[in-house]
Amino acid sequence: MKIYGDSNSGNCLKVKWVCDKLRLPYTWVPVDITKGETRTPAFLKLNSAGQVPTIVFDDGRTLAQSNAIIRYIARGSDLIPCDAFAEAKMDEWLFWEQYSHEPYIAVCRFQMVYLGKSVSELDPEKVKRGHAALARMELQLVASRFIVDDALSLADVALVAYTRVAHEGGFDMRGYPAIRRWIGETESFLGLPAAR
Amino acid sequence: MKIYGDSNSGNCLKVKWVCDKLRLPYTWVPVDITKGETRTPAFLKLNSAGQVPTIVFDDGRTLAQSNAIIRYIARGSDLIPCDAFAEAKMDEWLFWEQYSHEPYIAVCRFQMVYLGKSVSELDPEKVKRGHAALARMELQLVASRFIVDDALSLADVALVAYTRVAHEGGFDMRGYPAIRRWIGETESFLGLPAAR
Repeated sequence: MKIYGDSNSGNCLKVKWVCDKLRLPYTWVPVDITKGETRTPAFLKLNSAGQVPTIVFDDGRTLAQSNAIIRYIARGSDLIPCDAFAEAKMDEWLFWEQYSHEPYIAVCRFQMVYLGKSVSELDPEKVKRGHAALARMELQLVASRFIVDDALSLADVALVAYTRVAHEGGFDMRGYPAIRRWIGETESFLGLPAAR
Repeated sequence: MKIYGDSNSGNCLKVKWVCDKLRLPYTWVPVDITKGETRTPAFLKLNSAGQVPTIVFDDGRTLAQSNAIIRYIARGSDLIPCDAFAEAKMDEWLFWEQYSHEPYIAVCRFQMVYLGKSVSELDPEKVKRGHAALARMELQLVASRFIVDDALSLADVALVAYTRVAHEGGFDMRGYPAIRRWIGETESFLGLPAAR
């Protein structure tokens, strides 16, 4: 299969990490979001939403949305809990990540790293909501080793993608010791170098 | 089980509709978002994200995020495709709904219906992105009867929640005949009266 992705995007890296962990073969097709490469007619044929990551399987079928992709390619693996309720809690965190975490933490980071903004130029509401997301994660990671109970799942993979680079978006992580402990454990599980 | 929900919220209604369709018994516990009732200490114990819908099962376990909830309560029903790839496409649309549809269409509607804004006071960027979401749905619903192929799934339930009331957020639906056809079919399947 082909992964159309931008290696600066945590959403795209999630898919790469799951493939690497599960030893699924793939070809990485680089797509540069900042150059409008997700908006070309050729790309829009693959994904009418104009977003990466987008997967193209060998039979031509396509799949988009990072969390839907990793859910599909990891099916049957131990990255998805066997217990139906634990799987539902994983889903709860996957949806929360896209709604209440990524739009603040990833967006602040994007604006600082790729648009050259300084911390003081960030939207204070986005910063506030990013910290609210981190505070909620901290609460969870004080209570359990990983996001869903004590076993690593796709919820950890999805959430670590932008949390490990949150400092690049101006978020001071010193107040979140449980998150820092968890980042290290999750990076180690995925075979990633420390992000800072 | 108890559904903590606000009956003005499409996200909450999704859960009610799935329960009603599948004849799952529940108690509806009204929570008024606009009165801050999702931010009380008692509510935050149920869901530290402070969001509705939140489900409390009879054994005390809790589950949040509308799409994670409906995925869990509808497991094994024909609202979820049997085929793994079709299920993945359903998930793609569920994640897309929360990331690229709800933040624009539901938010514009909220601002007009509950905050009393006029169309001209809406953020033009949100309106533009709302129309982009509707245009993508129209494209899909010209190609297939429902969102994923020709059978109704949770993707239709999730997307109809705010699409059927998009006109209340200032979206002129006359340009989306396939969506209007699909709204009627989905409302009929769910036993809902027409939203306008």
